[in-house]
Order: sequence, then structure tokens, then C-alpha cells
Amino acid sequence: MRANFGTQYRLTIFGESHGEAIGVVIDGVPAGTPIDEQAIARDMARRAPGSDPAATSRKEPDAVRIMSGVMDGRATGAPICGMIMNTNTRSGDYAQLRTRMRPGHADYAGHVKYSGYNDPRGGGHFSGRLTAPLVFAGSVARQMLAARGITIGAHIAQIAGCSDRALDPVHMDAQTLLALQESRFPLLDPSLEGEMRARIAAAKAEGDSVGGVIECAAVGVPAGIGSPFFGSVESVVSQLAFSVPAVKAVAFGDGMDIAALRGSEANDPMRMTDGGVSCTSNHNGGVTGGITNGMPVVFRAAIKPTPSIAREQQTINLETGENTTLSVTGRHDPCIVLRAVPVIESVLAIALCELMADDCSLYPHRHTP
Amino acid sequence: MRANFGTQYRLTIFGESHGEAIGVVIDGVPAGTPIDEQAIARDMARRAPGSDPAATSRKEPDAVRIMSGVMDGRATGAPICGMIMNTNTRSGDYAQLRTRMRPGHADYAGHVKYSGYNDPRGGGHFSGRLTAPLVFAGSVARQMLAARGITIGAHIAQIAGCSDRALDPVHMDAQTLLALQESRFPLLDPSLEGEMRARIAAAKAEGDSVGGVIECAAVGVPAGIGSPFFGSVESVVSQLAFSVPAVKAVAFGDGMDIAALRGSEANDPMRMTDGGVSCTSNHNGGVTGGITNGMPVVFRAAIKPTPSIAREQQTINLETGENTTLSVTGRHDPCIVLRAVPVIESVLAIALCELMADDCSLYPHRHTP
Amino acid sequence: MRANFGTQYRLTIFGESHGEAIGVVIDGVPAGTPIDEQAIARDMARRAPGSDPAATSRKEPDAVRIMSGVMDGRATGAPICGMIMNTNTRSGDYAQLRTRMRPGHADYAGHVKYSGYNDPRGGGHFSGRLTAPLVFAGSVARQMLAARGITIGAHIAQIAGCSDRALDPVHMDAQTLLALQESRFPLLDPSLEGEMRARIAAAKAEGDSVGGVIECAAVGVPAGIGSPFFGSVESVVSQLAFSVPAVKAVAFGDGMDIAALRGSEANDPMRMTDGGVSCTSNHNGGVTGGITNGMPVVFRAAIKPTPSIAREQQTINLETGENTTLSVTGRHDPCIVLRAVPVIESVLAIALCELMADDCSLYPHRHTP
Amino acid sequence: MRANFGTQYRLTIFGESHGEAIGVVIDGVPAGTPIDEQAIARDMARRAPGSDPAATSRKEPDAVRIMSGVMDGRATGAPICGMIMNTNTRSGDYAQLRTRMRPGHADYAGHVKYSGYNDPRGGGHFSGRLTAPLVFAGSVARQMLAARGITIGAHIAQIAGCSDRALDPVHMDAQTLLALQESRFPLLDPSLEGEMRARIAAAKAEGDSVGGVIECAAVGVPAGIGSPFFGSVESVVSQLAFSVPAVKAVAFGDGMDIAALRGSEANDPMRMTDGGVSCTSNHNGGVTGGITNGMPVVFRAAIKPTPSIAREQQTINLETGENTTLSVTGRHDPCIVLRAVPVIESVLAIALCELMADDCSLYPHRHTP
Repeated sequence: MRANFGTQYRLTIFGESHGEAIGVVIDGVPAGTPIDEQAIARDMARRAPGSDPAATSRKEPDAVRIMSGVMDGRATGAPICGMIMNTNTRSGDYAQLRTRMRPGHADYAGHVKYSGYNDPRGGGHFSGRLTAPLVFAGSVARQMLAARGITIGAHIAQIAGCSDRALDPVHMDAQTLLALQESRFPLLDPSLEGEMRARIAAAKAEGDSVGGVIECAAVGVPAGIGSPFFGSVESVVSQLAFSVPAVKAVAFGDGMDIAALRGSEANDPMRMTDGGVSCTSNHNGGVTGGITNGMPVVFRAAIKPTPSIAREQQTINLETGENTTLSVTGRHDPCIVLRAVPVIESVLAIALCELMADDCSLYPHRHTP
Repeated sequence: MRANFGTQYRLTIFGESHGEAIGVVIDGVPAGTPIDEQAIARDMARRAPGSDPAATSRKEPDAVRIMSGVMDGRATGAPICGMIMNTNTRSGDYAQLRTRMRPGHADYAGHVKYSGYNDPRGGGHFSGRLTAPLVFAGSVARQMLAARGITIGAHIAQIAGCSDRALDPVHMDAQTLLALQESRFPLLDPSLEGEMRARIAAAKAEGDSVGGVIECAAVGVPAGIGSPFFGSVESVVSQLAFSVPAVKAVAFGDGMDIAALRGSEANDPMRMTDGGVSCTSNHNGGVTGGITNGMPVVFRAAIKPTPSIAREQQTINLETGENTTLSVTGRHDPCIVLRAVPVIESVLAIALCELMADDCSLYPHRHTP
Repeated sequence: MRANFGTQYRLTIFGESHGEAIGVVIDGVPAGTPIDEQAIARDMARRAPGSDPAATSRKEPDAVRIMSGVMDGRATGAPICGMIMNTNTRSGDYAQLRTRMRPGHADYAGHVKYSGYNDPRGGGHFSGRLTAPLVFAGSVARQMLAARGITIGAHIAQIAGCSDRALDPVHMDAQTLLALQESRFPLLDPSLEGEMRARIAAAKAEGDSVGGVIECAAVGVPAGIGSPFFGSVESVVSQLAFSVPAVKAVAFGDGMDIAALRGSEANDPMRMTDGGVSCTSNHNGGVTGGITNGMPVVFRAAIKPTPSIAREQQTINLETGENTTLSVTGRHDPCIVLRAVPVIESVLAIALCELMADDCSLYPHRHTP
Repeated sequence: MRANFGTQYRLTIFGESHGEAIGVVIDGVPAGTPIDEQAIARDMARRAPGSDPAATSRKEPDAVRIMSGVMDGRATGAPICGMIMNTNTRSGDYAQLRTRMRPGHADYAGHVKYSGYNDPRGGGHFSGRLTAPLVFAGSVARQMLAARGITIGAHIAQIAGCSDRALDPVHMDAQTLLALQESRFPLLDPSLEGEMRARIAAAKAEGDSVGGVIECAAVGVPAGIGSPFFGSVESVVSQLAFSVPAVKAVAFGDGMDIAALRGSEANDPMRMTDGGVSCTSNHNGGVTGGITNGMPVVFRAAIKPTPSIAREQQTINLETGENTTLSVTGRHDPCIVLRAVPVIESVLAIALCELMADDCSLYPHRHTP
């Protein structure tokens, strides 16, 4: 626990926002698995700052350097270390934050936990920048899943109260998800982009920020993956999803709304079909008893508004022990929802690799050339 | 993963609904910790069936027999095995369910995962009955936390669309939470009990079931517990919460609603107070950056309506490969929300013990007499 | 760690010698695996006390009661809890040991670790009796391995300085190992039994005890199992072997003697054979680079003489803080080597199941009827 | 398991001999722990090649670059990634080894495990070079232990059959161990250096290699560390020791010789002393029941002769499927025992940090300035 995730597709993350580098070690990629570095670069670019006017103006190329575990385009079976060197850091922006705690941030909680020894520069190890290694691990995972016919995609379900329509939980297909992956601003109803950007811009203009919701799904997931209890699909996905800074809620299928349904409404009727067994609805988000049932796996994650805002906030000065106010300066995203989309996709990809490895017959353990 | 939880307060669960016994092994309780078996019995009774007319009429005493790890009322430091013998099983009720899959249940997903070898009697290992060992582990955890000044409580936040008011996220106190623990039907607004019971009864009368929401909180939790990323408070609580059958959403603080706030609204302003540092609001549910900030820890879990309903449902017959219908007979709860309250409390208690053990100075490692 | 072993074939042990029961939960047995309870009973009987005049005269049937995870003779895929109820305990024998520490035992170390709260009756959780659950877990593991063509056996390589000849590390076969399993006193040179028993009897007559060495091997293990570093075959086997009370040394292949060889002597020459690849010697005990190479896996474990002896020993009285002497009374084995043979076999069986599950293609994950 | 070690002092290693870099991520170093990079450099230099004529003539500075987790000379509490860039690689030397398997090496076992996709250059992930990250992790661990009064040291107990005298298991002191650490060729009887070097030179002259034994000890270890069974001191030390390539036997205290003792000889008598409790002998190597008893912790590890030898050996050609011969060329150590000394010390240091963290009161969790 802590820096380590998983027992099958095992991740270890490290790094601070303004340290030497950030990275992740992945253990558990079967030898012979093709590793497409161009696909990785595309995924990294989707998360990287500076690529969209709605996000921060910082430019960080976020190129992953693979230090180990890959040779001639294939996994060797040894641990894969992906590293992103830190550049373009302007630590001066953060000097005041050593003593003045940013509301909504980890500053105070981290100060107590680490007895004041934590690296405060750019948020240190708490920085959202640490999601870059997750996207690398997710990109590798997604490649493994694609070889098994599994496709993952996500869209912006809401920004600042403006909501996209939901994925069809029963009839969604891989094409829809792939198209979202390739979109610069992934929406099912692209006409909403203008309104969403306007709300972000309005908040930014007031020195404020906005949050949102991401809906993520996987199709092609066979039935029988996951376990009851601690290794349930929901348990593993949520453990990872809540690892992503700013996520405050995770919901599968109908989520909180399922509480108001009756059993006769929430139960998904089952039918024999050409392809086997399927349900005529998907209120359970593709998971029953913690295990996939062959329907699309669907979940939502709420992303809170970026806590770094220019507007003056009430806070404390730890050095003086007195109340004070704070305006967070620097180049901060007024909305991280767009950049979080590939992170949330990575969460699902990593979780499915972890869970499928428990089911050897479903996992591409040894890759034959 | 799977039957094992944790690296510090380690649980291993086992058992099937209609097998010999169900139980849990707890490793990590410091030697010398007083174990109050009467308090355990009270917690078990809150979850046990048969104690409330709104729940099933099955009577299962659910007495925990401690097989190891406790001597003369104190933990010995060795693993504690708590076991509940199974009695009063009527397997005949479930005979038809071997082939006819219950919608909303784990039947089909489990059949695929376990290649048809899973125990189908009473839901087998998937049974909600497996939450009894969780309550035992949670009761032990709660006793350890109480010795550190931490109090946990929960209430029914919603049943069938009828909502109780929310806990005051800033000013809640231990007395309120303890009173909820002792309530036969824990509500902040007790006047709602009638309406909730009426909605349960109405569903039952139609052979149907209802779901709900539980709000759970802890006060007295010091700042500095938890870790960024995979060991965040939210990650560990949600991994456990989604282990509880029927939970489909987990939300901290404002949960999904935080997505529509601005940063200036969602950030909790900080103030110096007599006791140290506190916030004037608690939209983050007591957790920032994955770590407690000293405010009450608050989360909600959505419980789906019981999938076992008498109303006819469309489903499949795995033996014939044909579509069919099913009415689930037997003594099933029309609503499990009330019985789930101590389970959700246990989730938080177990998670906090796991997380606090990472912070030795906060954990009652060695108990001096 | 502690009461938990493994990430694939996961064990959790519990119990004290004179508590209610001892047992183990096994998670990771594939659904559908046949579980032969008679074979388990035979393995348990080999470890049980009272079956051989050289061992203790205590009679403990050690019948395992399977509480979960098995139905109709097959694993259900859910955790398997095997429990052995404690009977025939005579705690009175141990009353003086609460304060007078037995040299060579865990008494003092355990007293410090557990702050005096550990269960001292019969050694409590430290008792050699806890190896009974290991034999149960090993018996299940052995059944899984047998289905893959892997046979495990062991013999008494030494008792009290009297040494049996070694297994032929290159040409040993399954028949030899199976014959050892069925032997009442497993030796490659059965003529040594008399001398060994005489040495045990001589020590017993003087109120003393003797130790020995067990050599254990597996044939039919395919090449490619294990990992470099922390998951090496030697790492996993030794972690388990040193879990067995009284083991003080573990050696693979030539063991300590390999240090005096030259590279040209210690390297095992490789040859193409009908069946594939093999070596003409086996100084490395079937493991190179932490991974099996297709040769028999061979290791030795040193068992120290039973520390419970009637001869007077110098020790301390923790209550008075003074020096004293102690004669351990009660029915203690003058030699546990014979009873440890199935325990050491179990160590290898459990380790191989754990390691093979990492290599899905080698592991009988899903059992088709 | 595999690339990950530990649940408290958690390591993740990565890298291949001729890849971009090798390294380790350490999670679990308490925030505020002083990290002395000069002490780390000294430990790294002891293991590095090229520093002694008895070892390989390759020169690799092995400078560790700390990529994360340390700021202003102290641990931040976040994961510490130490990386060693690879330089001075001459992959051409190894071209023939892709098909011709080196006897005694991981070549064949690794080829099977990784389906031929493993990196064969310089041994790839199996290279002894991966012990450099272990020395880094061990050096950090040693600094933490030193702050608790624990000192670790080791010496060459044997090379090529020439044996140094043993450490006094009862009366050894920290000065002796520290002096060994500072020695260029650590022996208790320095007069043996000439003979040992002569034997190494003789083997080298014949294109051969030699092995040896390392004895390692820790003083100042309080009683009460470790657990019975899977978390025993011996289990954790041996899991790590067998992770070191070339280790084939691990023995605590009297090791294999204890098998021939009687209980009255092997039991260590206990006495009250000024400082508390101690034993008058230490046949058990400071560990009883898996837990430290306050005596020095002592173990030995056998190092097999380097498998890479110039002498012609019989082996196979995997490409042709035919028998062949092989002379391993390149700059290989004729004896790695000297360089392995700091590696074995690191094994003990890492194991003790892992085990002590289970005992919070013994572990320097939060460092106060």
C-alpha cells in the first residue's frame, strides 16, 4: 500500500513535481508483449499540460523514457521503469506556500503526516503531475487489453454543471469509445464544448476554478473477472480512482441513483443472445457480486474544482500560528477535467489487467511471436 | 487481494452461507489490547437477521466464537480467528437457482468465474451473510479506535427515496454518533421512521424491494492519517466499502455534488482554533490529498435494492440455454439498509486501523497494562 | 507477512496449542480442483504425535475439519478453511513456564515482543503444533501439483549425526519419492533406522534430545518457474522453511559445500536429451538464477534438537529477576525430525503452487470436469 | 513478490545490466530521516567493480542518483528512487550467448520463463549488477538502524576452502563490525588475505573461478523483533539473501551443525546481567521462535563460484538444438565473494528495517529535528 499497487499488475510510483523526475515501475507485463511507444506518447500528450487553452499554459512535454524492461519493442518480462524528467519548473512561485496552507490542498494534511519534511515545491509528491506515470502504466495496460478485444474510453460527463448525455450502458460499442479517445475534447454531444469552455473561462476570469464528472467504460470485457469482497471490480477500480488527486466520488452503473429504485427496476433482466448471455439493461454497470457479467463496465468519477485559485481565501500561517489570507499565484489549470480523462481511462485499464491476471485463461501471460 | 485485506490490520475472510461456518482471521491486533466480547455481541446483533420486522424473518443468532488470539480478555498478539457456525439453513429454497440465474445477483458472474463449481446454496461465498465477519473485525477495530478517542457512527441517509437530513459535517460530535449506534433505527430525524417503514412495507407487499443510502462518519480522527495515491483514505475506505455486497457508489464529503461547485466554494477555509487547526466547512469530508485533515471523516455509500424479489423477472436457464422467468422465493429482506449500517461503520473502523498503523505514533501498538 | 503467506496460493494461519483450535485459510485454489480428504488424512497422520515410539506419547488425532471452500469433493473457488480442534491438552504441565523461560524456546523473545500477553500454554502460537495446518495446506498443494506431473518426497538425511545417503540429484524418480512418502521411517538406506532410533533412545534416557537434517526434492517440475530476486525459488522455499519452528539452515543443491568448488565443478553441464534439455550434474539443486531449470529441485533443512528437555538447564525467572534452573517436564518429543518430514514436503509443495501460479500456463487454473 | 519486497520497508528493483539504468524505489523511510549520501557512496564503492585486483577489471563508478524522496539531506516521506545509469557496456562480448546457454547461469531457465524475450545482454535483469540497488537500499537502512544503536558488519568466512575464524557469537562488539566495514578485504584474521588471493589467482590463471562464504552479524538488536512463522527473522533474511545471485545456502547460528548437537548443547542458557537478559552461548544466532532474543544476530551465506569461466564447458545451442561447448569470454570476476560482502550486509539491514517497522516502538517512525 502507499506507493505500491496490485499483486499481479504491480505498480510503484515515485517522484515529486519539482524534483529530478517522476516515474513508475511496472512489474507483471508478460515477456513478449508488444510495447507501442507511439501509442504511449499519444496517451501522454492527452494528459500533458499546455495542449489546450482551457488548461494551464505551462508546457511540459512529458516524454516517457523507458529505463528498463523493454527491448526491441517488446516487454522482456523484467520490471518496466518509465521515467519523466522534470523540466520547466519555477519553484519561486511556491515559496510562500511553505507556511501558508492552501485550502483544499494536501498542504496541511501532508505537513502533519510528514512532520514538515515533505517537499512543498509544486505540491511535491502530492502533485497532480504524478498522474503522468499512471497514464504511462495505463497505456501499457490498454495495449495488453486491446490484444484481448477490450476497449476503454471516457468522456466529459459534466463540467461546471453542464452535462453531456450518458453512454448507452447496453449498446455502446468500441467505435464510440475509440472516437472519444481521439477527440480533442471528448463529448458524446460535441455541441456542448462551447458552453463548457465558456463556463471554464468565466471561472478563470474571476480567479476561480471548476470541476466536473468523467464517465468511463470498457467494452469486450468477458464475464467472470473480479472476486467477491476485497478483490471486487468495484473495490480495485475505486482504490485506483481515489488515488487520483481531486476524485471525491466513484459510482458504478446507476451509482447513487440506484438507491431510489426498486429491485424490479435495478435488477438487469438476462437474455440468451446469439453471442451468449446478455442483459437488457445495465443498472449494475457490468458488475454483479464484484464480478463482471459480460455487460459494459461503466463508472463515473467526480473531479473537484482545482483548489489552486487566485481568489483570496481564508487560511492559516503555520509559522506564526495566525489566521491569514492567500491568493494562489502561478500558472494553474482552471479546470483539470479534460486532462483527467486519460487518467481515469488508465485507472480502468490498470484495474482490469490486475484483475484479469487472477484469471489466467483470460490473461495474455506468455506472448508467442 | 480477494479474501485478504490490508497490510497492517490484516483480514482474511472465509465461508459460505450454507456451509459449516463463516469467519475471519484478524492479524495485527497489538498484544494486550482489551477485547470486549459483549460489545462485539451488541454489534453483531445490530447486523443479525430477525431482529427487526422490516428485515428478513430468518433468525440467526450470529454468535461469534473466538477460536484464537484472545486470552483472559486481551489480545495475545497472535491472529484472532472469529467464527460463526451456520445454523437454520434451508437449502431446499435455493434448489432451482443452480440453473436459473437471479438477475442482479452474482449467480451468472460467479458461475463463469468458478466454472460452475461455486457453492450456490444461499448465495454461497457471495452471501451478504459474509458481512457478519466484517462486523466482528469492525467491532474489534472500533474498540482500538475508541481507546484513541475516535468515534464512528452512521445513519440511514435514505430509504426508497425518503431522505434523512445529513450529519453536520463541521460540528458533529461523538455523542450524536454514539446515539445513532444505540438506535434501533438510526436516523437524525426519527420522525421519518414511519415513512421509511411504510415504503419498505409497500415494496414488500408487491414482492419487491428497496435500497437506500448510508452516511457514515468518524470524529476524533487526528490529521495526518493516510497516504497520497494507492493508500489514500478514500482508496482504502472505498476498497472495503465496495467489498460489501450491494454497494454501488461511494462518495466523500460533497461527493458527486462537488463537481458543480467552484474552487472558492469547495475549498474548506482554514482557521486557527483553540484546539489547533480546523476548517469552517467540510466539503472534502475530512480528507485532502488522501490524508485526514483533522475534520470529521464523512462518506456515503449507496445500497442497491435487494435483488432477491418475489416478483417475476426475466432471466435465463443455463442448463437449457433458454430464456425463462424467475420468482425468488424464500425469506429475503425487502430492504437491507438497516442491517447494513453496522457493516458500513465497520468499513470505516477497519480502514482507519489499517491506515493508522502506518503512523506508529498514532497506533496503540503495545498495550501497557 | 506474519500470519499471511503468498500472493497467489495465499495462506493465513491461526491458533494456539492449547486454545480452541488451530487452522489455516487457503485462498487461491482454483474452482473445480478435486480435494481428496483421505489423502489429506494420510498426510496429517504422518505429522501427528503418538504414531511412533520415537516421538511423543501424546495422542492427538489432528483430524482436519474443512469449514469452507469445498463442496462435493471439489474446491468451490472460495477460501478453504481447514480447522483442527484442540483436544487432549494438559495445561497444568506448563504452569511454571510463565515465569521461567525455557532456553532454546521462543519464551523470552515472545514475552518481549508481546509484552507478556502471549499465550504461554503449550507454547501458544509458537507451538510446533501449528505445523499441522501447514501440512493440510501442503497436502492440498501436493494434490494440485500431482495433477501436473510433479511429485514431492523427503527423507531423513541425518539424525543425531547418523546420516542417510543422499538422493541422486540427477536420476531420482517419482517412484523413489512416493515410496519415501509411504514409509513409516523414510530412509534411502533403511538399515540405518536401528542406529537412528538407538541414538534417539539414548538421548531420551538422559533427559536430552537430538536434531537432524531432512532432504526434500521434487521431480517433474518444468523449467521456467520462479523469478530472479525476491521471488526466486530459493527465496520462497526458504521463507516457508524457516517458518517451521526449529529449522536453522536451508541449503539448495550442494549448499554450503558449493563454496569450496571451482566454477568448472559447480556449473552443471547441459545436454540435449530425448525429452529436451537436461544437465549431467545438479550442484545447483534444479535452480539457476532463481528459476527452475528442469532438473529435480533439491534442498536440505537442518532441524535443531527439541529444546524441551528434562535435563536441568540454566535460565532466568522473569518474575523475580533472578537466575534459576529448569527441567522441562511433560510429554515432549526427544526428536521431531521424523514428524517434520511431511512438514518440509509441504513447504516445497506450497512454494511451488505459489510460484507456478505466476506462470499461468503451468498452473491448473480452471479445472474442466 | 518478484520485483517487490516487503510490506513496511518496501523495495521495488528494476533494470538490466546493459539497459539504460538500474535502480530501486524505497517506500517506507520515515519523513525527516537524515540521508547521508557520502555514506551511501562509500557502501556503493565497496560493491563496485574495478576497485580490487581480485575482481573484474571493468570500471563502473556506480554513482547513485537520487531521483525522488530526499530534499535538503532528509527523507521527505515520499518514495525514494535511487538510480544508477549504465555506462561502459560492451554488449558485443555477449553476442554468442543468445543461443549458447552458459552452464550455472540463468540463461536457459530465463529463456524458458520469458519465452526467449528476456534481455540477454550482460545477463540482463539477472545480472549481479542488480545487487547495486540492494546496496543502496541497504545503506539507507543501515543509517536508520545506526540511529537506533544497531551495527551490522560482515567478513569473508571462506574463499576457495580457505576459512577465516568465526565471529565470537556472544561477545562480538560494534567496533569489530565497523572495522570490518572499513577494511579493504574484511577478515578477522588478516593474515589469510595472501592465501585467499593466491587461490583466486590460481583459479583465474586456469580460466576458472572460486566461491566462498560470508558471515554477517548485527549487534544492538533489541529482543522482540520478528514474528513466528512467515515473518520470522530467518524467513525474511533468507528471502532476501536468496535474492542475491549465487547464494545457495543460508544458515543461522550453528546452522547445519546444530543438527548433530543435543538439546542440552544447542539450547543457549539464559542469565540475568547488568543490562538485562543474555545468553552464555548463541547457537541459535540470536533468534528463537523466529524472534530476536537480544543476542547478536548471526548468519552465513554460501556464494557459489562465478559461473562465467573461460574454461571450456559442455552446453547446448538452443538455435540448432545440438550439444556444443562454450568458453565465456569478457571481463568476469574470478571471485565475487569480496564484492558480495556489502550486499549481504544490506540483506540484514533491509530485513531488520522491515521487521522493526512491525514493532512501532522500536522504529524511528517520525523523526523530530
